[in-house]
Amino acid sequence: MIYYLLLKIYSNYFTNLNIMVFSINNFFDKKNKNSKIVDFQDLDHLDGVSISAVSADLYDKKRDDLVLFYFRDGANYASVFTQSKIVSENIKWNKKIKAKKIKALFVNTRNANALTGSAGYQSLKELSLDISKKLSDKQNIDEEIPKIINPKEIMFACTGTIGEKFPIEKIKKSIPDLIKKIKYTQNKLVWIKAALGIMTTDTKPKLSMAECKIGNTEVKIYGIAKGSGMIYPNMATTLGFIFTDADLSSSILKQILKKNIDTTFNAISCDGDTSTNDMVSFFSTNKAKNPIIKNINDPKLKKFNYSVHEVLLNLAKRVVADGEGASKFVTIICKNCKTEKDAKAISFSVANSSLVKTAIAGEDPNWGRIVMAIGKSGVKVDIKKLSIFIGPFKVLIKGNLVTDYNEISVCDYMKNESIDINIDLGLGNKKFTAYTADLTKEYVEINSDYRS
Amino acid sequence: MIYYLLLKIYSNYFTNLNIMVFSINNFFDKKNKNSKIVDFQDLDHLDGVSISAVSADLYDKKRDDLVLFYFRDGANYASVFTQSKIVSENIKWNKKIKAKKIKALFVNTRNANALTGSAGYQSLKELSLDISKKLSDKQNIDEEIPKIINPKEIMFACTGTIGEKFPIEKIKKSIPDLIKKIKYTQNKLVWIKAALGIMTTDTKPKLSMAECKIGNTEVKIYGIAKGSGMIYPNMATTLGFIFTDADLSSSILKQILKKNIDTTFNAISCDGDTSTNDMVSFFSTNKAKNPIIKNINDPKLKKFNYSVHEVLLNLAKRVVADGEGASKFVTIICKNCKTEKDAKAISFSVANSSLVKTAIAGEDPNWGRIVMAIGKSGVKVDIKKLSIFIGPFKVLIKGNLVTDYNEISVCDYMKNESIDINIDLGLGNKKFTAYTADLTKEYVEINSDYRS
Repeated sequence: MIYYLLLKIYSNYFTNLNIMVFSINNFFDKKNKNSKIVDFQDLDHLDGVSISAVSADLYDKKRDDLVLFYFRDGANYASVFTQSKIVSENIKWNKKIKAKKIKALFVNTRNANALTGSAGYQSLKELSLDISKKLSDKQNIDEEIPKIINPKEIMFACTGTIGEKFPIEKIKKSIPDLIKKIKYTQNKLVWIKAALGIMTTDTKPKLSMAECKIGNTEVKIYGIAKGSGMIYPNMATTLGFIFTDADLSSSILKQILKKNIDTTFNAISCDGDTSTNDMVSFFSTNKAKNPIIKNINDPKLKKFNYSVHEVLLNLAKRVVADGEGASKFVTIICKNCKTEKDAKAISFSVANSSLVKTAIAGEDPNWGRIVMAIGKSGVKVDIKKLSIFIGPFKVLIKGNLVTDYNEISVCDYMKNESIDINIDLGLGNKKFTAYTADLTKEYVEINSDYRS
Repeated sequence: MIYYLLLKIYSNYFTNLNIMVFSINNFFDKKNKNSKIVDFQDLDHLDGVSISAVSADLYDKKRDDLVLFYFRDGANYASVFTQSKIVSENIKWNKKIKAKKIKALFVNTRNANALTGSAGYQSLKELSLDISKKLSDKQNIDEEIPKIINPKEIMFACTGTIGEKFPIEKIKKSIPDLIKKIKYTQNKLVWIKAALGIMTTDTKPKLSMAECKIGNTEVKIYGIAKGSGMIYPNMATTLGFIFTDADLSSSILKQILKKNIDTTFNAISCDGDTSTNDMVSFFSTNKAKNPIIKNINDPKLKKFNYSVHEVLLNLAKRVVADGEGASKFVTIICKNCKTEKDAKAISFSVANSSLVKTAIAGEDPNWGRIVMAIGKSGVKVDIKKLSIFIGPFKVLIKGNLVTDYNEISVCDYMKNESIDINIDLGLGNKKFTAYTADLTKEYVEINSDYRS
């Protein structure tokens, strides 16, 4: 109850923060034999992570806009960044980090620090000096002998408007408060506060967790994310931060993240657009006493690997489900392709098709548009082997419309909030699943009318 | 006046045919030193082409849905077809044509003859036999000795719903009427009737013409097109038919069409979707007594080549301007790139970005989204050399927001119906221009609500 109260209180801080009546629990909060996937209310203390969130008055309305994750003993780390050829200054900064361990992740919203040039980069330098100095000072820190923190051990995530001057003065003024408010022990509220603090125009905080064993040692995997909010800022940015207390090297983290990102954060599409600021980072505090893992193929890592995938996928789905104007969550499974590349090309061609997405918004089982999107993907298709299913309903079997096709039943199915489209190419055994939302009038409204 | 009356009469035949108040004349009907580009009212007789259009009752409301172009002495020809990997039966038919000359082009609307399998193909075979037989019979034809027409000299264009049974019976029943009504001499009304007959949910007929000289011989280039109507049919289809009386071989036509299609019909994007049925065909009746052209680089062909480009571009622009829900026509010029491929990738990345297109619908000069779309194109960009102009206004010069950037003036410019976005990469000397429309709530409404 108290979390909902907190949500309610926070919701008053946000413009347009209507917690959407969009039940996603049924397909997100499933339990699984390999890991315990639970709703975010169960996030608790994760040893080695400390968290703070405050307001630097970056928005017109009062809300948290700075979030600090402080790893007092450092964290091993791995990141994936936007594929855009134009990246923000903080992405440039992060790409240059060579430190053995990360000591802090600093997140600001409202300003993307993109197209801010050398002044934007200089601001991060200044901030890193300031934060590292203050975190190294025992007056500020709840420790007998504070750790000495190097500015180059600080990672930055920024999201918000691009091309605007980075608000360095306001941010610097809030650093003392941010550090003073560090919670060395987290509970659910602290995590929710952090997840709310990194939101832009998301309507819901996005959290996910899993617990599993490496060998006989229980370890935790916690994650928060923000998604495609673009009402006020000029641009969507997807940020995802995954934390574990497992004892794993940066190299292992990197391999696990790389292995799982393509089928999770890289399998979602809201509108086919890509931000200058996207990043997903994975941190391990190494506090758990799990057996040492030297190889990603170590069988002891199997459940952990699976659980990371579940946490990433859960967050990625929440990002899609909270996409601007989204009224339906759409899963596109393309199977029996010659290559995974083919399966991915077709899934995304369908997921990104405005005609398919508007049909879904209109609850219209317009399979002709699905065929069109398959055709335009560029993948060679044998129409005589192509089958299409909408939910449990066969539509096209080996190129022929099924004889007992009952459009009324399929139309009924389209009224669901979660729609599955299955495409079977009948040419091989490779598959890919993409996730998207429908394209509604609200999407256009949000993205065209926000200045007027 | 009479044309507008005819338009008015026809408009009653169409569902949702509101002739949009969307003045495109100012940028379409310019005159040029190389060719005389004039508005479609001036289309007249083009020697060697005969035209007919009738209704086969394929729609619920009465309207022309069959159009026949009959070339009594045959026409040299060239075509480009959809790049989709799933194509309609008529595209398959057309790709197999080996005839030296085409004798007729038969167009039907309402049914795309796509995903209709062997039955759909068989229908075309049947139709081709029927049409060729009737055209070879002097009872039907205004000629002393009718030409013998081979079924394989007939080309088909189809547009409409996919996956529905091809209405062969209704069409066959109307063939006698269609042939009886052939106009051996056209005037403006005949061309408009043909352009109206090939429309699906277009709101306006699309015609264009140019006259120029090959050597000292005046030749005509007439064209009609239909565009992205998707209200009732499941799918947009772009059809373009260009006719000339010039004496040119199929090989020369092919080269001219290929040369000009990339910067005209392949430079437009309404929603990034591609149909199973797209085709643009070019026919020459060889009635003009122009000098024989053996090589596309013959200087005598220069003005003709330019005029074909203008006719194609004019039609392509009309297709965009009449795109579903379009309220603004957008030109994206990307210049000073290393390669034309780069320029094209960037132009289309901007033209297809939902975020850019919704911003334009909202009259918001959201240059951050333009930068985002440039970045996601995959083309390597040096931000320090990147400049962006919105209309006549400098926005970004070599990576910096211009110091005297006046958003009020740029917002004022965004109220225009025709918006230019200029992108200068500063890396080379190659360029590409893409054309698109904005993304409006009406687009979503048309494409999601049409069955409800």
